[in-house]
Amino acid sequence: LLEKRLFQRLGIPVAPYATVDTRGDLERAIAALGRPGILKTRRLGYDGKGQALLRRASDADAAWATLQGRPLLYERFVNFSREVSLIAARDRAGTIRHYPLAENEHSAGILAVTRAPYVNAGLQRRAERNQRRLMHALGYVGVLCVEYFVERGRLVANEMAPRVHNSGHWTIEGAETSQFENHVRAIAGLPLGATTARGHVAMVNLIGRMPRARDCLALPGIHWHDYGKSERPGRKLGHVTLVTSSRVARDRAARQLRRRLIPQ
Amino acid sequence: LLEKRLFQRLGIPVAPYATVDTRGDLERAIAALGRPGILKTRRLGYDGKGQALLRRASDADAAWATLQGRPLLYERFVNFSREVSLIAARDRAGTIRHYPLAENEHSAGILAVTRAPYVNAGLQRRAERNQRRLMHALGYVGVLCVEYFVERGRLVANEMAPRVHNSGHWTIEGAETSQFENHVRAIAGLPLGATTARGHVAMVNLIGRMPRARDCLALPGIHWHDYGKSERPGRKLGHVTLVTSSRVARDRAARQLRRRLIPQ
Repeated sequence: LLEKRLFQRLGIPVAPYATVDTRGDLERAIAALGRPGILKTRRLGYDGKGQALLRRASDADAAWATLQGRPLLYERFVNFSREVSLIAARDRAGTIRHYPLAENEHSAGILAVTRAPYVNAGLQRRAERNQRRLMHALGYVGVLCVEYFVERGRLVANEMAPRVHNSGHWTIEGAETSQFENHVRAIAGLPLGATTARGHVAMVNLIGRMPRARDCLALPGIHWHDYGKSERPGRKLGHVTLVTSSRVARDRAARQLRRRLIPQ
Repeated sequence: LLEKRLFQRLGIPVAPYATVDTRGDLERAIAALGRPGILKTRRLGYDGKGQALLRRASDADAAWATLQGRPLLYERFVNFSREVSLIAARDRAGTIRHYPLAENEHSAGILAVTRAPYVNAGLQRRAERNQRRLMHALGYVGVLCVEYFVERGRLVANEMAPRVHNSGHWTIEGAETSQFENHVRAIAGLPLGATTARGHVAMVNLIGRMPRARDCLALPGIHWHDYGKSERPGRKLGHVTLVTSSRVARDRAARQLRRRLIPQ
């Protein structure tokens, strides 16, 4: 709620929403904003946890039963064509370096694939303007990510992550300076490094079950990240990044990679 | 001595040399091979330690006084136009991936600057042939470096380093897969990654005294490596890598960087 109000104050578009503290609030919100919509906890949600999608009128009871007792909000469902995110670093002197937009594909509420750069000059410009307003308003130093829906060619801010972000892991091998290095440079009072992409990059999350490294590493342009965690459904265990020289090559290689990632 | 004999057995050119165990051996070696030449310990030498350059006849006494008592060899001084090194990784199945040749500039016996790739198709081919013979003969798995002098357009092997090597630190940001990652892939039984250079790269060692990070990081394309060691004359404390898109840009940026590295 605080985040949405901040976005609104700074002229950053958000989806229509209403606060929900009672069953009556929920009825009024559905009546005003329509369905489908999402009922969410106002704090501590992540990876699709703490939210429920309301498609039919009858979904409200189950959602309320699950989420009641915590401060909530109801948000009109954004009928998006794609999801993108912008990551930027701001140093102590207030200088900001923006990475190119990345396109994110979620699966069951969890980031599955990021492709970068997502080239769209108009959206890049608007996202950078939003980011500047946000980072300056917060007096922010370090890396911050804003996730957007793209709805009929317009950016609708979904949420921000005041930290390095999964949708920026592609920058480790795919950008001149990674989001991690720029975060450290920023907070250590050092000049920021270039945020240019080194090519066309895809980052695929390894979720729930680790594939065999050798199957992936035999493909060209692959970088393997194993977080050393035990397997569990829906858990991010690692990621694979591939860097190629063209969008076509990237998308072809990403398809090939994802076929290898399907557990045999 | 064992290394030189191995090189010779495999048809890899080395500088003319003779073993020296007595003062008489040294006189005979100088008479046979001429001056200038280098008197070296046969084991544990590095960064110019454990060797003495003999220019004049009178240098022999001082060199002998310093080095006697250990097994030595005397080597004709190679009047080289440049020093280059080849790094390659060999996996468990015997597949070898060669990095492009790098050109090395030493200062007081210590590697100061590496520039890569050093583009010379003929020398690259010969260095790769030598490397293949060496790695197969040793049944080697992992990363190995061979350092060469270039004398009248020919490679003369100086020494090998059976490990990741300082002259390959440029691969961390400057190659598709770093020497470190390929070493780990090799010994872990994983497929090797591409060894292609990502551009034109210079690696500058930080020796003896650390410059201020902020002075260097303000330059574009810079990557900063601080080993966290205390300062001491002649000690390698870190390195800086810069990645550019052309040889001209690299050499200009490297000159600019080295001016900033001179302690104020």
